Amino acid sequence: MAKKMLDLMSLYASLKKDLKTIDKALLNLVESEESPIIEQAANQLLAAGGKRIRPIFVLLCARLGKINQAAAMKLAVAIELIHSASILHDDVVDDSDMRRGKISVKAKWDNHIAMYAGDYLFAKSLESVAQMGNPQIHQILSQTTYELSLGEIEQIRYQYDATQNIRVYLRRIKRKTAVLIAASCQLGAIAGGLEQHAKKLYLFGYYVGMSFQIRDDILDYTMTAAAIGKPVGEDLRQGNITLPALLAMKNPLIQAQIASVNETTSPAELQAVLTAIRSSGAIEQAQLVSEQYLRKAVAILDSFQNPTATKPLRQITNYLLDRDD
Amino acid sequence: MAKKMLDLMSLYASLKKDLKTIDKALLNLVESEESPIIEQAANQLLAAGGKRIRPIFVLLCARLGKINQAAAMKLAVAIELIHSASILHDDVVDDSDMRRGKISVKAKWDNHIAMYAGDYLFAKSLESVAQMGNPQIHQILSQTTYELSLGEIEQIRYQYDATQNIRVYLRRIKRKTAVLIAASCQLGAIAGGLEQHAKKLYLFGYYVGMSFQIRDDILDYTMTAAAIGKPVGEDLRQGNITLPALLAMKNPLIQAQIASVNETTSPAELQAVLTAIRSSGAIEQAQLVSEQYLRKAVAILDSFQNPTATKPLRQITNYLLDRDD
Repeated sequence: MAKKMLDLMSLYASLKKDLKTIDKALLNLVESEESPIIEQAANQLLAAGGKRIRPIFVLLCARLGKINQAAAMKLAVAIELIHSASILHDDVVDDSDMRRGKISVKAKWDNHIAMYAGDYLFAKSLESVAQMGNPQIHQILSQTTYELSLGEIEQIRYQYDATQNIRVYLRRIKRKTAVLIAASCQLGAIAGGLEQHAKKLYLFGYYVGMSFQIRDDILDYTMTAAAIGKPVGEDLRQGNITLPALLAMKNPLIQAQIASVNETTSPAELQAVLTAIRSSGAIEQAQLVSEQYLRKAVAILDSFQNPTATKPLRQITNYLLDRDD
Repeated sequence: MAKKMLDLMSLYASLKKDLKTIDKALLNLVESEESPIIEQAANQLLAAGGKRIRPIFVLLCARLGKINQAAAMKLAVAIELIHSASILHDDVVDDSDMRRGKISVKAKWDNHIAMYAGDYLFAKSLESVAQMGNPQIHQILSQTTYELSLGEIEQIRYQYDATQNIRVYLRRIKRKTAVLIAASCQLGAIAGGLEQHAKKLYLFGYYVGMSFQIRDDILDYTMTAAAIGKPVGEDLRQGNITLPALLAMKNPLIQAQIASVNETTSPAELQAVLTAIRSSGAIEQAQLVSEQYLRKAVAILDSFQNPTATKPLRQITNYLLDRDD
């Protein structure tokens, strides 16, 4: 146990330096004397931090091979910029005033600034990577962006739709979350000279992303507002029907309750629906689905038959999903 | 005169077929069973037509050399998709309910759909071009997108700012309009195997774009609502201070009048400001600036020392700017 702890700490120490460099690169990229508004908006978001999960996956996958440090850093920054852009556009839609426990850019400025700041970060990402002149990298980022935009649209399309099925949910979180983590791992493979493993690492990232998003969706039902930095049950109130609700809806009574939720639902009514979902066993079932994806991710790492080399990826995956090694 | 007319008609006949193919490709690309909302939103915009100026410049510049028809068509479609995406995001900001004389996507659906439909068209453009595997093309599109996003931001930054100068205005219209036409010409050069002339044709497109946007900004002061498909003086009312206003502001009285315009300005008050600008001579001065850019564009065509080959570009430029040959 003590050794495990030390290992994780030493992994973090080795990542810390790279993550600082990435944060610095992110801030440098959005520094623009010409557009103080956008700089403020972007800085606000970047400074709020976040876990920098995607850059970490780029770096760790690259380290599986012989890492090209400059390429890995550039790709890590590009991926985080796309992620930030998509958060900015989500904020416009979610009407969420809180993001990462801080007031959101959208609330502080307005929808238009958030939209344009998103456009800007997104364009900046593509522009910074275009200089590398690698068509494969561009294909990956373009495809990822395209899937992300479909995910955004599906989020609206299925908002407050209590007739949607689990397949539709899984496709949505694939596009909204998993594809970007998958691309992080795939780009890491490329930056590590591991083209032959790029597809396998893409799949690893996809499984991690699915497991992670399902867990995140569970937290909206189980954590306190203070711990997740936004009101509890916010997903449901905003019509984002996630796996716990979908599993609970097998009970027609709960299905009817969930179908009745809309923007004007009172906190007390919402509480009643949340309680019904929580006591239905759906949370535990959703947890099992998340773990299933996690096992698939770990199986891919096992297939490398090199426990020492894949250990950091295993550690960070377990950390991300709040699991013991 | 009769011969000129026939020439222009035959140019159009030769373009018509390609433009139909482009329109078909645009509609095919946005056909997506999975997202009926987005398909409707995008179709609505694409069906509204527009002049397809950017695709035309791609094709005509490519024809200056030995055109790769497939590449030219793909690039023409990609450019039009980016243009459409930027229009969708403009509609969010402008609060404009009319676009090309039809009700805008934003008014018909809402801001979120317009934003996501824009994200989608934009991603679709990059994704469709990524398959070509040409890093230079990607660099051009990324750079163009980046400049576009800065232009969007500047439009907000200088909204209702009656202290801005003409240099700021020129930079803004460069980014908002001219860069995309410049990129169209540059991409056309590449699709025509004219890499050695790519920069020159970029500059040609830039000058045409500047001339065109200034003329468009003038029309907002001179045309009837029916003719331009939106209310007269809409730019000024929405705080988009363009060249006629900037030139008229040399008169401090008019400057004060323009500085007082905001969203709540009554139609009668707005009329008074418009009349002041119109009688200041600023419209005529702005027209001279537009013509100056046009002359620079034509000088580039002249530098090819091949009047026959460059004739279609000259014709379409004059048509666009409503000039005699």
